[in-house]
Amino acid sequence: MENKKRPLILVTNDDGVSAPGIRALIDVAKKLGDVFVVAPDSPQSGMGHAITVNNTIYCDKIDLSDPEVQIYSSSGTPVDCVKLAMSKILDRKPDLCVSGINHGSNSSINVLYSGTMSAAVEAGTLGIPAIGFSLLDGSLEADFEPSKKYVEQICRQALVNGMPENTVLNVNIPKLPEEEIKGTKVCRQADAKWIESFDKRTNPNGREYYWLTGNFVNLDTGEDTDEWALENGYVSIVPVQFDLTAYNALEAINKWDLP
Amino acid sequence: MENKKRPLILVTNDDGVSAPGIRALIDVAKKLGDVFVVAPDSPQSGMGHAITVNNTIYCDKIDLSDPEVQIYSSSGTPVDCVKLAMSKILDRKPDLCVSGINHGSNSSINVLYSGTMSAAVEAGTLGIPAIGFSLLDGSLEADFEPSKKYVEQICRQALVNGMPENTVLNVNIPKLPEEEIKGTKVCRQADAKWIESFDKRTNPNGREYYWLTGNFVNLDTGEDTDEWALENGYVSIVPVQFDLTAYNALEAINKWDLP
Repeated sequence: MENKKRPLILVTNDDGVSAPGIRALIDVAKKLGDVFVVAPDSPQSGMGHAITVNNTIYCDKIDLSDPEVQIYSSSGTPVDCVKLAMSKILDRKPDLCVSGINHGSNSSINVLYSGTMSAAVEAGTLGIPAIGFSLLDGSLEADFEPSKKYVEQICRQALVNGMPENTVLNVNIPKLPEEEIKGTKVCRQADAKWIESFDKRTNPNGREYYWLTGNFVNLDTGEDTDEWALENGYVSIVPVQFDLTAYNALEAINKWDLP
Repeated sequence: MENKKRPLILVTNDDGVSAPGIRALIDVAKKLGDVFVVAPDSPQSGMGHAITVNNTIYCDKIDLSDPEVQIYSSSGTPVDCVKLAMSKILDRKPDLCVSGINHGSNSSINVLYSGTMSAAVEAGTLGIPAIGFSLLDGSLEADFEPSKKYVEQICRQALVNGMPENTVLNVNIPKLPEEEIKGTKVCRQADAKWIESFDKRTNPNGREYYWLTGNFVNLDTGEDTDEWALENGYVSIVPVQFDLTAYNALEAINKWDLP
């Protein structure tokens, strides 16, 4: 029987339900409440806010050695997983949605491409306090232990304080031993970008194809950005909005000569 | 030979290179400059800001009756198409990127899911003035003729005035005869959302699956929103930002008890 006094926590990610990063996040979430996991059955990095339209979505409860946690594996995107959890799996609104821990950075411009963050944003649009966590280590062998203290305290504070309206959090954690992490910084998103460089190849049938590669370039010298915090040993916390209106541009566009 | 004095216009979409909506957009773009089209080879609605990582991307020049336009068809997402165009296909930075005309609305919260808008946002992050256009008619037989006057004038103004920094435009056009469209309104994104309702079915092998459905709910009564404009017969123009920092939430999060 569910204990209604414990917070209900929805866990998802974009690296897939079997990724080590989501195990670390589940470990933390179990200390804080009743945990439901609804996550993709395979890696979905770079899926952004994609949803499955005009196609089927599977979502199966998977067997587990841990009776404390309910785990569902879905063929859908990270955003689909949040929608499915809210619509079909949970019997009440969760108190918190956490996504990750992503294997690799979702700082600055990466927030746009990140399935991890899009899952958190989706939960936010549904009125759930939501946080995406990412570790700056893309390896499958990444060490998530130093992250746990920060993940736990940030989640506890979200449960205690709630989340500012129409806001979710983008938390990135530097790849450092615990004793070298200096603490947290609340930041703005750095004005950084990717300079793409596609690798052109020819397939065995003679047809050309490409691989997406690229270099990350940060020209933002501000010391209030997530990139600055991470480079200087801090966990970065960026509050993220999903009202995308560029309010400061309304005046300029209103001056255009339009019908 | 390319005439360097004419603007270079990159056209893309998320309904696929063969959709009627992109043909309408190409028709308009040809009046304004030299046109390159790099668009998905198949429908990519709901792809959001997805990119193709860890997989191949095809991109082929396709044959065309119209010698005035260069058209490339790609297996990638709308965002991939913009990245490929910038990195591999165009020999200079375009003066404008237009995406659409989408078959269906991308107003309010739909901006998050829209491949059409994500392509425009991607171009914006690369410093290109960019506009996503959508018609509130999802049908393949949608009539794009009434849209053309608005698309042309908005594009002309973007070429003349440039775009406010770090801003792209989300333009939605009501499904109305030309004489019933009242003009344009510069708006904010309405605070509307989707209430999901998955349709659960069983496949021929006995395994359960879902179809995503849902109802669009607008509880935002403001008369300065895109939803209001569209419901009242106006073309809505929302300036959209890609710095997602919720600046007004920084103070609240800074008060949290964090390490």
